[in-house]
Amino acid sequence: MDMDDSPAFAELLPPDRTLMGPGPSDVHPRVLRSMATPLVGYLDDYCVEIMDDIQEGLRYLFQTDNEHTLAVSGTGSAAMETAFGNLVEPDETVLVPDNGYFGARMGEMAERAGGEVHTVSAPWGEPLDPADVEAAFEEHSPTVFGFVHGETSTGVRQTRVSELTEIAHENDAYVVADTVASLGGVEFRTDEWDVDVVYSGSQKCLSAPPGASPITFNDRAVEKVHAREEPARSWYLDLEGVWEYWGEERNYHHTAPVSTLYALREALRLLAEEGLEATWERHEHVAGALTDGVEAMGVGLNTPEEYWLPTLNPVRVPDGVEDGQVIDRLLTEHGIEIVGGLGALDGEIFRVGCMGHSARPANVSQFVSAFGAVLAEEGAEVDLEAGAGATASALARRDR
Amino acid sequence: MDMDDSPAFAELLPPDRTLMGPGPSDVHPRVLRSMATPLVGYLDDYCVEIMDDIQEGLRYLFQTDNEHTLAVSGTGSAAMETAFGNLVEPDETVLVPDNGYFGARMGEMAERAGGEVHTVSAPWGEPLDPADVEAAFEEHSPTVFGFVHGETSTGVRQTRVSELTEIAHENDAYVVADTVASLGGVEFRTDEWDVDVVYSGSQKCLSAPPGASPITFNDRAVEKVHAREEPARSWYLDLEGVWEYWGEERNYHHTAPVSTLYALREALRLLAEEGLEATWERHEHVAGALTDGVEAMGVGLNTPEEYWLPTLNPVRVPDGVEDGQVIDRLLTEHGIEIVGGLGALDGEIFRVGCMGHSARPANVSQFVSAFGAVLAEEGAEVDLEAGAGATASALARRDR
Repeated sequence: MDMDDSPAFAELLPPDRTLMGPGPSDVHPRVLRSMATPLVGYLDDYCVEIMDDIQEGLRYLFQTDNEHTLAVSGTGSAAMETAFGNLVEPDETVLVPDNGYFGARMGEMAERAGGEVHTVSAPWGEPLDPADVEAAFEEHSPTVFGFVHGETSTGVRQTRVSELTEIAHENDAYVVADTVASLGGVEFRTDEWDVDVVYSGSQKCLSAPPGASPITFNDRAVEKVHAREEPARSWYLDLEGVWEYWGEERNYHHTAPVSTLYALREALRLLAEEGLEATWERHEHVAGALTDGVEAMGVGLNTPEEYWLPTLNPVRVPDGVEDGQVIDRLLTEHGIEIVGGLGALDGEIFRVGCMGHSARPANVSQFVSAFGAVLAEEGAEVDLEAGAGATASALARRDR
Repeated sequence: MDMDDSPAFAELLPPDRTLMGPGPSDVHPRVLRSMATPLVGYLDDYCVEIMDDIQEGLRYLFQTDNEHTLAVSGTGSAAMETAFGNLVEPDETVLVPDNGYFGARMGEMAERAGGEVHTVSAPWGEPLDPADVEAAFEEHSPTVFGFVHGETSTGVRQTRVSELTEIAHENDAYVVADTVASLGGVEFRTDEWDVDVVYSGSQKCLSAPPGASPITFNDRAVEKVHAREEPARSWYLDLEGVWEYWGEERNYHHTAPVSTLYALREALRLLAEEGLEATWERHEHVAGALTDGVEAMGVGLNTPEEYWLPTLNPVRVPDGVEDGQVIDRLLTEHGIEIVGGLGALDGEIFRVGCMGHSARPANVSQFVSAFGAVLAEEGAEVDLEAGAGATASALARRDR
């Protein structure tokens, strides 16, 4: 490498995309604008005010009164590791689900924290059954139990959350919920459902860019962290250190991602303006129009209504169609991003996100029309017009 | 928490600041604009192109041909932990300096990684002496040695870097350099100086917001990581996983902070346009005008010319003046952010950053005038006019 090798980059000119994958979602224009705002220092009184706003907004989003509510300085997986890395001590037994990609990731992180990991099973594409969780508790006696509320890899919503937390608490265990693909899109009630630690991401239902990730710990979980025999294995994600900054002291721990906090605050402001229940209803309404259209054109969904996750819709790949080909054509010919299945569902499903600012009629109409057109051109037997019609009709209904 | 507690936030309207503290620095307007750009997915071909550009730009910045050069999805401390968390295995001996805040942080992180930490001493405000490093190697036989090239807490530049790396390599140890407050501001040559792992931040000399942090590993360091008996203790910061995304495969590991990558790319583009050597010269020229002004008004610096760090200037608090009062007045009356000393230098020095887009004549002229005025009002014996005059004169010289 020498001094004359100064690289020459072209202007930043990304193609115009409609983001209907598993995230990032389309970022709201007001959130984009907030990112262009000049910075203040991360200990400036104004930054502290913004942090207060963010914490208030996050408590509303999580539906919690937990004091320890903050934004992790990283993307969703950093929040996941903040949960497991702080809660799990070496040699503790941890129970995680094996019915999706992110349950497995929980297990990997719990192992890095020194935990012994066992799994509770459900098929990919189905939620956990509380009876199976109860049996796993009897067999393994875990002290920490993690579950995924909205599993991005399968498009499944974990139902009966209160039953899961009750089982765990009867066994004196702590419960961690992954709501990366669900919080702010579908109903979740941290306090009412008695979940000890809940985390999420900013780039899905919040319509903000990735890089600052919501997390909340209840007092019981915080006491467990305080009682650790040795500190968390990551300094950067150590709740004790991070709370020096987000707690009352507002002391330096690490430099906060100021611009991303601006974005998160604007996203939470938008959420508060719309209202949380109205946001849930919008996701259900708009994603419902999407699935109505898909089904009307003759393509199946991979989840029954009972545990449908409106924010991430698993659409079955029709016979005779190659999933990668459809995904590529949607992107290059229509500017729409969707993705394929993971793990056991690779090649079986498309995953179509409908989250945050992407969960709006324009996106869904555009997607259903383009998806039908590409499938037809790829030789699938679809009724393009019925699909678009059903979506239009569902969008027009106000009583959903 | 109930549904009616929807919080109401005011518009995002931060005060106008001139950021002359230890970071974030003023972000370049082109970088701010880049953050307002709509996102693409993190596996979109365009995002992959941007990552290619970033890696090319980072290699230029680091002056390295290292393949394993990337941006960590977090702020500078996340990059520090990526270095120590991957390089240090349990029970390894690690040597770090005790002459500043960030050397101590290296030690904390090495301990979290399971390392046994020893220190090599120098007074706060002075660099390490290679003779002391050699003696510490003889005494403790460390396998990993970290040093801080530009110590933010003291404003000291570590000189004689090649001598340090030679000592370490003669002892078969690996060398980690912290360049958070120096890279892109003062000369640093990763390959020529034979440093194994180097990391930095985006919010100082690069004029970008915090949240994506440069790091580079040479092949020797990568081989050490590959040979680990157990994986790194942080999943999020595990080089093996992160490299699945930044390496040739470009596979999903965790969601990348797309907007912050846009910003880092624009910052690297600006650096390449100016040229690295020209950037170093600008920092020296402009910060030199700052220190000339400060000294001409009768206020001392805490570092001799020999290890002066132009990017972070430690200015002695004049007799009879309370440092916090000066800092507060500069911020509230002049909109200028500087900070006080840390640790052994608390109350002894002001720390005045001059990095990236903050290292420009407008900022330095504004700072020297305002600083002189506040000191005079606080009762210090300063020659305000001589200070402003010396700065103007130094800025006018082109031969510096």
